[in-house]
Amino acid sequence: MKKLCRVVLLAAVAITSVSAFAQFAKPEDATKYRKASFSVMGTHFGRLGAMAQGKVPFDAKAAAENADIVASMAKLPWAAFVDGSDTGDTKAKPEIWKQSAKFKEAADKLQAESTKLAAAAHSGKEDAFKAAFTATAGTCKSCHDDFRAK
Amino acid sequence: MKKLCRVVLLAAVAITSVSAFAQFAKPEDATKYRKASFSVMGTHFGRLGAMAQGKVPFDAKAAAENADIVASMAKLPWAAFVDGSDTGDTKAKPEIWKQSAKFKEAADKLQAESTKLAAAAHSGKEDAFKAAFTATAGTCKSCHDDFRAK
Repeated sequence: MKKLCRVVLLAAVAITSVSAFAQFAKPEDATKYRKASFSVMGTHFGRLGAMAQGKVPFDAKAAAENADIVASMAKLPWAAFVDGSDTGDTKAKPEIWKQSAKFKEAADKLQAESTKLAAAAHSGKEDAFKAAFTATAGTCKSCHDDFRAK
Repeated sequence: MKKLCRVVLLAAVAITSVSAFAQFAKPEDATKYRKASFSVMGTHFGRLGAMAQGKVPFDAKAAAENADIVASMAKLPWAAFVDGSDTGDTKAKPEIWKQSAKFKEAADKLQAESTKLAAAAHSGKEDAFKAAFTATAGTCKSCHDDFRAK
């Protein structure tokens, strides 16, 4: 029952509009916020990667905890790519604003795959977890290739 | 049903051990992580504050969304106060490590109050939300007074 709730909630939250979060006093605040949320996400994704790549033993509980955080964090950065936040301390490419539909699609893919990753981690099945990790990592790479400067 | 799930989950997650997250390659990584998680939390807490203080109209949906994020983020920073991360780019006072039981108590208070704040926000009752916001803000201030340098 608890697992079911969690999956239902993940799905429900994933389709929740994030428009209410699009509130930054200054573009720099938005940049700082999205970098912070990517940074937190990256820390937990890195821990999943260590397990997925066999650098540390698979631990179903740790995988589930970290994957839940990744799935939550994956919802946050997008509302912070506000107009005017394309300069300054950022690697964001102009394509983010020029190809906003494509960027949104990439953001949606990460959110969808990270939700599946959390479900796979909760299943406790290492193979499913590894496959879902690879799929999620692919959405990171693809978006970085297109929308993040080196 | 969905709300019930959410409250049950918040409670369940709040008592989950975070020991699995205590993994940083370098003390600086831990410092960066905790600052990033506090920063994300602060952004969303600030939006709640604007509503609690009447600077923007109370919006139950936005309050619930932001409070859920605050409650999630409130669980993250603590495991990053690792030994050796008391110097460098941080306002962390030595008391964090010298009075670790007191610091843990302060961290637990924030988590407990922010969980209540999320529940109050989900109730849609502005008065309950404001009271819970004030209680949560009190845990921030108290901990900053004792454990964060000016």
